[in-house]
Amino acid sequence: MAVATAHRLSRDQVIWSFGPDLEPVLEVGPGDVVTFETNDCFTGQIQSEDDLVTEIDLGRINGATGPVAVRGAEPGDSLVAEILDVRPVEWGVATLIPGFGQLSGLVQAPVTQMFQVRDGIVTMNDRISFPANPMVGVVGVATDGETLATGQAGRHGGNLDDHWHRKGSRIFFPVRQPGGMFAVGDMHAAMGDGEICFTGVEIAGEVDIRFELLKGKQATWPVTELGDRWLPHATATGYEEALQLVSEEAARLLVDQHGFTMEEAFIFLSVACDVGVAQACKPAEGFGTIARFGIPKIDACPMPFR
Amino acid sequence: MAVATAHRLSRDQVIWSFGPDLEPVLEVGPGDVVTFETNDCFTGQIQSEDDLVTEIDLGRINGATGPVAVRGAEPGDSLVAEILDVRPVEWGVATLIPGFGQLSGLVQAPVTQMFQVRDGIVTMNDRISFPANPMVGVVGVATDGETLATGQAGRHGGNLDDHWHRKGSRIFFPVRQPGGMFAVGDMHAAMGDGEICFTGVEIAGEVDIRFELLKGKQATWPVTELGDRWLPHATATGYEEALQLVSEEAARLLVDQHGFTMEEAFIFLSVACDVGVAQACKPAEGFGTIARFGIPKIDACPMPFR
Repeated sequence: MAVATAHRLSRDQVIWSFGPDLEPVLEVGPGDVVTFETNDCFTGQIQSEDDLVTEIDLGRINGATGPVAVRGAEPGDSLVAEILDVRPVEWGVATLIPGFGQLSGLVQAPVTQMFQVRDGIVTMNDRISFPANPMVGVVGVATDGETLATGQAGRHGGNLDDHWHRKGSRIFFPVRQPGGMFAVGDMHAAMGDGEICFTGVEIAGEVDIRFELLKGKQATWPVTELGDRWLPHATATGYEEALQLVSEEAARLLVDQHGFTMEEAFIFLSVACDVGVAQACKPAEGFGTIARFGIPKIDACPMPFR
Repeated sequence: MAVATAHRLSRDQVIWSFGPDLEPVLEVGPGDVVTFETNDCFTGQIQSEDDLVTEIDLGRINGATGPVAVRGAEPGDSLVAEILDVRPVEWGVATLIPGFGQLSGLVQAPVTQMFQVRDGIVTMNDRISFPANPMVGVVGVATDGETLATGQAGRHGGNLDDHWHRKGSRIFFPVRQPGGMFAVGDMHAAMGDGEICFTGVEIAGEVDIRFELLKGKQATWPVTELGDRWLPHATATGYEEALQLVSEEAARLLVDQHGFTMEEAFIFLSVACDVGVAQACKPAEGFGTIARFGIPKIDACPMPFR
């Protein structure tokens, strides 16, 4: 069954950074659905295993399709982006990039690896097959001042590289500029937590997003709602600082939104919630670590802002 | 239905460190099942919210019941401990310890929090209830030379604090001494990844373990088998080093056991496998970080040693 779609954006409508002054290419209302055509993270510059990441234009990576203004979104609100579907094309690619990742000292980089995606299965080298997990790496809104390349992550979202950003998730972005100014890209047919070589199965495709607004309420960082839990995010250069920041954000939400004492929040996060690492490729000069906390939807904290 | 049990060990049979020269209190054969009575991590020193962690004997924490020698286990083998059941008692406890954990600067420590565990539900303060997840924090074998307190983790296991060490998991330990010398303790009625305040729901109980041997094959660190994936572990002082070590261990197993090239292993770990953090409480003076990698059981890598 096709998703009812009100709007469509071409993958030519691409931005390369999230800043405070984005100009919308489309305006929609709350409740509207937009289908975003997205480029793969290399913008089509890698088409075969002979195309190496060291030979492409690195100014054209991690582009995001948009931005879309949502009518009525004002600073202080949350813009809710519900991912209705993620549809990759048939062929994707991963790369080994010199100097990037935990095993970069053990391989002769660069390497380009092609993957076929068919019937929900990803196959590499005709021999290694695993389930697809279509998701989006770059998803964000305008910032409150700084300008960050779409390959970066921050309080506006951006390159969060969280594989839970798949069909069925709802991401709550803190609106910093009128309209919010949403953009999405960097689809992966599959990606693991950590993404230790710095790429997933990078692929072009289409994403259907439904927008909603939550007036007058927002977190500091993007918070994602899944069926059974919610995920605050935070990012910093290193692991320790990112986990520290996401722990503080999670505790703040439990205290402010659900009436926990700080002591209860600290203990509950320790005994019932899961620290996670979305993006942890190291070394990765110039890129940070993205941490999340998985908080079960129980009666005492079904989701912030509820 | 009661589990058929061949042997039983009292919680008085406790060790406080894993070293090379452990003397067994019980010898069993491959295939045998042992029920271990385990102490809570404070060895019963905390019975109410008036008992503070700052006032107890810290020489009596994280004890493990054992050790058990398994006939025929020799250095070079793997000792497989299958967790058949984990049965906590009704009351457990968590503590906030001054100077430990991501939020330790935000609370007036120390704090003792009691929990009731009933019908698979854990409740704190009559108000916050969540599903129980009974598991064991300390599980290990004799070392190849060093002596580490049971509160520490290492290549022998020890305080791995991985909440996947629950009913149904199978942990493959590298045997370093004849008999293996297995011990288990530090049960939690629930614990989240990261365990950011340094305790789960600490509780006494009983654990049923079935032992098997895998002759002549072993990993460097404990590897845990679940129904749908396998989990190499590694530990180091900080996050970055622990994730580096577990990435190297996972890649080594994929290359040596399943014929992946190093390049394939690096890419597969990035696009299809999940970095995880079992224990990440920081600051935690004197204690490390425990990382794991979640590798799906696919045809190309169903489990090492298969």
